[in-house]
Amino acid sequence: MKSLASELARRREDHLYRVRRVSDTAQGPEQRINGKSLLSFCSNDYLGLANHPEVVAALQRGAEQYGVGSGSAHLVNGHSTAHHALEEELAEFCGRDRALLFSTGYMANQGVIAALLGRSDTVYQDRLNHASLIDGGLLSRARFKRYAHADVVALKGQLDAQDRGEALVATDGVFSMDGDIAPLPEMAAICRDRGAWLMVDDAHGIGVLGERGEGSLGHFNLGQEDVPILMGTLGKGIGTFGAFVAGPDELIETLIQQARAYIFTTATPPAVAEATRASLRLVQQERWRREHLNSLIRQFRQGAAQLGLPLMASQTPIQPILAGSSEQALAWSQMLEAQGILVTAIRPPTVPEGSARLRITFSASHTEQQVNRLLGALEQLATAGAA
Amino acid sequence: MKSLASELARRREDHLYRVRRVSDTAQGPEQRINGKSLLSFCSNDYLGLANHPEVVAALQRGAEQYGVGSGSAHLVNGHSTAHHALEEELAEFCGRDRALLFSTGYMANQGVIAALLGRSDTVYQDRLNHASLIDGGLLSRARFKRYAHADVVALKGQLDAQDRGEALVATDGVFSMDGDIAPLPEMAAICRDRGAWLMVDDAHGIGVLGERGEGSLGHFNLGQEDVPILMGTLGKGIGTFGAFVAGPDELIETLIQQARAYIFTTATPPAVAEATRASLRLVQQERWRREHLNSLIRQFRQGAAQLGLPLMASQTPIQPILAGSSEQALAWSQMLEAQGILVTAIRPPTVPEGSARLRITFSASHTEQQVNRLLGALEQLATAGAA
Repeated sequence: MKSLASELARRREDHLYRVRRVSDTAQGPEQRINGKSLLSFCSNDYLGLANHPEVVAALQRGAEQYGVGSGSAHLVNGHSTAHHALEEELAEFCGRDRALLFSTGYMANQGVIAALLGRSDTVYQDRLNHASLIDGGLLSRARFKRYAHADVVALKGQLDAQDRGEALVATDGVFSMDGDIAPLPEMAAICRDRGAWLMVDDAHGIGVLGERGEGSLGHFNLGQEDVPILMGTLGKGIGTFGAFVAGPDELIETLIQQARAYIFTTATPPAVAEATRASLRLVQQERWRREHLNSLIRQFRQGAAQLGLPLMASQTPIQPILAGSSEQALAWSQMLEAQGILVTAIRPPTVPEGSARLRITFSASHTEQQVNRLLGALEQLATAGAA
Repeated sequence: MKSLASELARRREDHLYRVRRVSDTAQGPEQRINGKSLLSFCSNDYLGLANHPEVVAALQRGAEQYGVGSGSAHLVNGHSTAHHALEEELAEFCGRDRALLFSTGYMANQGVIAALLGRSDTVYQDRLNHASLIDGGLLSRARFKRYAHADVVALKGQLDAQDRGEALVATDGVFSMDGDIAPLPEMAAICRDRGAWLMVDDAHGIGVLGERGEGSLGHFNLGQEDVPILMGTLGKGIGTFGAFVAGPDELIETLIQQARAYIFTTATPPAVAEATRASLRLVQQERWRREHLNSLIRQFRQGAAQLGLPLMASQTPIQPILAGSSEQALAWSQMLEAQGILVTAIRPPTVPEGSARLRITFSASHTEQQVNRLLGALEQLATAGAA
């Protein structure tokens, strides 16, 4: 494996080497990582539910009833009453006919796109879409078109030029590394007009946006007829694990029959589905989580603007600070860590070349004081002329 | 979505429609499915560990310590001491330098093949390989060659004809729908000779084969130098959820840097890793599970041979009975269900056209009496002239 070793060496030189930290605490602002206490601003547990006592208790009771492993795929005998009830609750939550559980968001995106499209079809994707949508498009063998970020005019032009087959437009709802929200109402109108399927990956919107946490589609008040394919994940705002696709009955039945990433994999543990059901109730009932989160975001943006930091146009819990080079992003992350604050540096290929950044994320479990501590640390960065 | 509805109707006519059953019991021989009590022979919980009290207790304690959701990807802050310890224990268990956790076997196969190969390389796959290996090959964009099932001469010829790039040979260890074991010693020799990577997906061998349950490679006594890339799943013989890749240090580091299905997904719940650690101890300590399982397999094969049933050449817990048409396989499955026995019909595209079958699987949690009950039901099928 000599060729692997030289490629690894090259990565180190380019400041692209990735190293894992080991955490021995539950999710929450205070983390013990590599044996050190750190205040963390990099989790996707946006509502602070990953470690909620009711969610933990539901997992424990679920294990009492169902054991741990599901034993097989959903289509063999791995589909439990817990999975089934969760699917019904997710459909209700999102205002869709039905929902279907997938093991991960990555697999859900692959499963959907590859099930719906073939070589004679075309998939249209935003340039900043998540890797899993890109990989789903590649796997489907459909023609692959990418349009400039959030550029509905470019998308319209591309759709107008399509001469055969089905069209599917796939976009992040909230962009994972930028935090901005896709122009979904305009996109929905264009897609409806041209008979294209619109698919929204709402991994970072579910739980966070909308009155009851129903995500970017709730935020814009878009129904199933506007956006027929909704993908949501359960390991971020919902605080547990897994993913789902929600939409019309025919879509869900088609996925059960044809989505290889659904058919050829073991179902998630039923106890995890029970934990998710508990979390989903809290997401809807405890509106204060979204209110508090939004107030922390405002507090941060005001403070960061006063410091003259290069903020991006995001109103969501994802608040990146652009560094440019990978070396710079890494250096900032290390300077913050020296002050007891954990914010990860995001580098290519996760983001485009030259746009390495700190990706700061907020959670309803953070306090105002903790956000002030972060701002204080960033001020030192700015004063040192670093940011 | 009119085109979807007509495709669904066509499937129904072709006896290819898939319907889910809903189970409200933990894994084990006695299942309550769609409200009916059934004796199940279709789970992949080969050692009967999915519902083991120690595994359940480990999940519950893990949730106490870590909560439920991991909060983010392994490379952000989702990598916990539980995941880390499990990786070390899996490496030790398999006799490899290191191991890396993936969320599912499907993602592990995609992650590995797409990280190692590009357009100028070639992937060689057995015709009966699992869908996830096939999809991994497609996603990698490498040239794709398939050889006849278990045909080492054909594989050798194909490898000899390769004129450029890297070569990776991927095979199931135990074939998931046939139960036979790949000719791994011959394949390892050929691959070593030609400088090709050999990758074994041991989803159905881990836990079941080998002295300590270390799988098909243990069964054949093949080390890391023989088979550099081992993929194993945790939701079958191990009874929990997830998957891992084990191999040389450079391989694992390369996957951490480059495997998109590793980088771009949320880590599994740490509590599930704790459950897996408990299960892995039982897999190694409780040899009686493999001994009992093997005795049930012998009992079944003897009984089925006496009934003149069309058995396949499998010595593993996967014991298919070939039906031919999808209609026939479905009819047999329904006749068994009428007698209180659950065995799923496996139809194309999961198996090749014309080779639909019953896939009977055994578990260490089955009893001799239960196998006799299955044989009695199959006898009625045979007497009725059905099988």
